Amino acid sequence: MIFYSNWRSLAAYRVRVVLALKHISHEVHAIDMLGGEHLKPAFRAVNPQAVLPALRLDDGRVLFQSMAIVEYLDEIAPAPPLLPTDAAGRARVRGLSLIHAADTHPLLVPKVRNHLTQEQGLSDDGLQKWLARALHSGLEAIEAQLAGSKDTGLYCHGDQVTQADICLASHLLAFMFFKLDASAYPTAVAINERLQALPAFAAAHPLKQPGAPA
Amino acid sequence: MIFYSNWRSLAAYRVRVVLALKHISHEVHAIDMLGGEHLKPAFRAVNPQAVLPALRLDDGRVLFQSMAIVEYLDEIAPAPPLLPTDAAGRARVRGLSLIHAADTHPLLVPKVRNHLTQEQGLSDDGLQKWLARALHSGLEAIEAQLAGSKDTGLYCHGDQVTQADICLASHLLAFMFFKLDASAYPTAVAINERLQALPAFAAAHPLKQPGAPA
Repeated sequence: MIFYSNWRSLAAYRVRVVLALKHISHEVHAIDMLGGEHLKPAFRAVNPQAVLPALRLDDGRVLFQSMAIVEYLDEIAPAPPLLPTDAAGRARVRGLSLIHAADTHPLLVPKVRNHLTQEQGLSDDGLQKWLARALHSGLEAIEAQLAGSKDTGLYCHGDQVTQADICLASHLLAFMFFKLDASAYPTAVAINERLQALPAFAAAHPLKQPGAPA
Repeated sequence: MIFYSNWRSLAAYRVRVVLALKHISHEVHAIDMLGGEHLKPAFRAVNPQAVLPALRLDDGRVLFQSMAIVEYLDEIAPAPPLLPTDAAGRARVRGLSLIHAADTHPLLVPKVRNHLTQEQGLSDDGLQKWLARALHSGLEAIEAQLAGSKDTGLYCHGDQVTQADICLASHLLAFMFFKLDASAYPTAVAINERLQALPAFAAAHPLKQPGAPA
């Protein structure tokens, strides 16, 4: 399979962690987002939405949307599993994941930032306020769920890594990218520290990918 | 189970369609969003994120995030199934769903609209431009996937209703709410017309719920 990726894309990061956790053999095709490569016809033929990531299967089909790809990889390569075995537990893990992947991250992406600054006239301060509102609001909700539930363990759900952990790590990377302070969310920060100590998360870190700044 | 809902919430709509399609017995607890009931401590104790929908199970656990709830209901009440049986097909259906539920809908919700108008000074025209960009961008991507794939049938994926159809119907409801023209997306519009003719979609329509304007 071919993984269309970019060092900075958090959606690509989420898939990259799964590929690493499950040791799934793949080829990486880096797309130059800063240079606008994702907007050109060659990539639009891969993913008409012109966003990363995409995953081309060996039969030529192209999968799109990071969390759909995460679920796919979890189905075709079940070990280690990224969802618990009970339906309510899976719903909690998917719910935690989507607070980040649905309600937060889509508000931060380049197309949205560019629209706000270039079409709506937001200043740098206005943009930072926008990003901070989205990220703090999301992490406040995640922290409340984590701190308030006996289902929380070493990681977001018990003591095994789930897709909720991948999304939490993605959320805290956004805090880093946009220079925000996460200290008001101690449960989330402590879990993320454990995650970053795992080889798959360390290897998938955006700043360790080709093209990233030194 | 108790379904915390509101007539206008599109995320609640998506769950409401599933409850209707699967004939799942439940109690509806309507939350007065216009009156700010979702922001008060009583509802924050149900869902700390203070958004709809939420689903309280009989054992007291509360599920959150619409698409996590949709997956849960599909697991506990498998007929009719809302995902195809093959992994790549499920990835396509989830991917189509998330173009709406992740990349589009979270940009339209009241908290975001209020931030843009009250904190960032967007005018009515600016807000409409923001909503139009998000909704057209999402539907353009969905249309390209639908029109370009032999997997598309009477509905988004073959001839059975999947969660992608529920999200497509949700997307076109947003077009209606915000008075946008969807005629540039004929495949999506044709599928939505078929969906609206189904009893479960008709019964779940926002304007048929208690509290909706006549």
